[in-house]
Amino acid sequence: MFTGLSAFPLTPLHHDAFDESTYARLISRLVEAKVDSITALGSTGSYMYLDRAERGRVARSAVQHAENIPVLVGIGALRTSAVQALAHDAQEAGASGLLLAPVTYQGLSDDEVFTLFQDVDAQVSVPLVVYDNPGTTHVRFSEELYARITTLEHVASIKIPGVPTDPKEASARVRSIREHIRTGVTVGVSGDATAANGLIAGCDAWYSVIGGTLPQLALRISRAALGGDSASALSESARLEPLWSLFAAHGSYRVTAAIAEYLSLVAADCLPRPVLSLNAEQRALVAKVVDQLQLTD
Amino acid sequence: MFTGLSAFPLTPLHHDAFDESTYARLISRLVEAKVDSITALGSTGSYMYLDRAERGRVARSAVQHAENIPVLVGIGALRTSAVQALAHDAQEAGASGLLLAPVTYQGLSDDEVFTLFQDVDAQVSVPLVVYDNPGTTHVRFSEELYARITTLEHVASIKIPGVPTDPKEASARVRSIREHIRTGVTVGVSGDATAANGLIAGCDAWYSVIGGTLPQLALRISRAALGGDSASALSESARLEPLWSLFAAHGSYRVTAAIAEYLSLVAADCLPRPVLSLNAEQRALVAKVVDQLQLTD
Repeated sequence: MFTGLSAFPLTPLHHDAFDESTYARLISRLVEAKVDSITALGSTGSYMYLDRAERGRVARSAVQHAENIPVLVGIGALRTSAVQALAHDAQEAGASGLLLAPVTYQGLSDDEVFTLFQDVDAQVSVPLVVYDNPGTTHVRFSEELYARITTLEHVASIKIPGVPTDPKEASARVRSIREHIRTGVTVGVSGDATAANGLIAGCDAWYSVIGGTLPQLALRISRAALGGDSASALSESARLEPLWSLFAAHGSYRVTAAIAEYLSLVAADCLPRPVLSLNAEQRALVAKVVDQLQLTD
Repeated sequence: MFTGLSAFPLTPLHHDAFDESTYARLISRLVEAKVDSITALGSTGSYMYLDRAERGRVARSAVQHAENIPVLVGIGALRTSAVQALAHDAQEAGASGLLLAPVTYQGLSDDEVFTLFQDVDAQVSVPLVVYDNPGTTHVRFSEELYARITTLEHVASIKIPGVPTDPKEASARVRSIREHIRTGVTVGVSGDATAANGLIAGCDAWYSVIGGTLPQLALRISRAALGGDSASALSESARLEPLWSLFAAHGSYRVTAAIAEYLSLVAADCLPRPVLSLNAEQRALVAKVVDQLQLTD
């Protein structure tokens, strides 16, 4: 389950409320494309901006519309007891796995991060994905911390940040991680711009932002890379350089929302305030890239 | 109201629930010491770890026990609509002012930070304090952003991070901020270790972590500094250097909780998991400093 393409859909809001019918259509696109798994309520799915009741509704909706595709659900929150409550809700909703980032307000020591995972691991019955996302959590995982956390019973995968673009460095990075973690725990790359490199370097999975909105596009890369056709994967990723440049400039979160809006997959202003949609000029640039690259899936 | 010493009490938890009777005693200590204001649910008060219902209870308890001392209430949250709901609750509870930090998960642009304050300003009826706390929010305020935000009607004060220790640099910093912000908006220093410097450099207020637990100690510094006796303020602050060193090493949040625990003001493990209390060795160091400096208030 923790291999291949895991697609991270947006959680569209409309007038500050969860837009369930739009969300159902986003999930159905992923089902039609046959992604390997769906991760509801990742960073792209705005999990940290939604309250417990909303997150329950999103999780149930994702599972309901995902048909036979496994659904992972993000359960990150600032307080351990809140994470445990969200884990409970996600499991009740039918999640096949749980994604947990050590979100911070006060910075956390390695011992505190480990204890968080330990406290959650002790209460769940489905597999856990460790979400290493320093850009949002400000936690810097060491390989030693990966090692400690992957001793926990339910930890099944690690979502790592983007890998180096140099293939040798990328392979060395993935190899070093594998040497530290329990055998059987998969390594999934995030950072869409380096996903092809990551998969070619030996990652098992791609935890993908763009795959949640343009799944066919992401599947072309993941299937080529995991099927041994590195050249095609790299060539497709290289073709998307203007998209990766937009991600670098404005963040994958806002750019993906702008793409979804331009393709009429979501209504305008689908992100939770205070996060604002890209402005008109930025949206025009996104539209131009969508057209140029024919990003219509 | 936004001058002098604003004391930030801990919000003690016991078995993961708000320990209201202990909190009431912490507030009563601040009342007896005659602090100039109390800020409930600041960072020291664990606001980001508590849910809406808990935060309502804490705000009501603070106001109830504060007698005639004005109570400010922290209303920061990741989503604008959540902040607005918390502002509503705090005002219903009787808050005299509101403290708002632009908390982030996705990073925010200056426009997004401004829009957050604008959206909240439009809905409140009591004054707002802008909470500039880069260590926890990862937002870097520019003086231009201070300027924009202080054009808003309800903004009455800015809580700035610690000032430079060099007196000339500190004065230049405070002067520069004043040149940018609307007249009448006060400037309050945080970062307890440089509070004496900040007040001497022209800050109107000290938004104080240690003042929430050891108010007499903090008042000796703030009254001396604001009363023109700079030498006494600096000498008392210098005497506390071992305390500031502990803050620097372990964070003021955990160290203040350890002090409160050592003085039997709170029960053990009063912080919200995954935040852990200092370990036994660290707590022994805290106890030593408390005894050496006679930090019994």
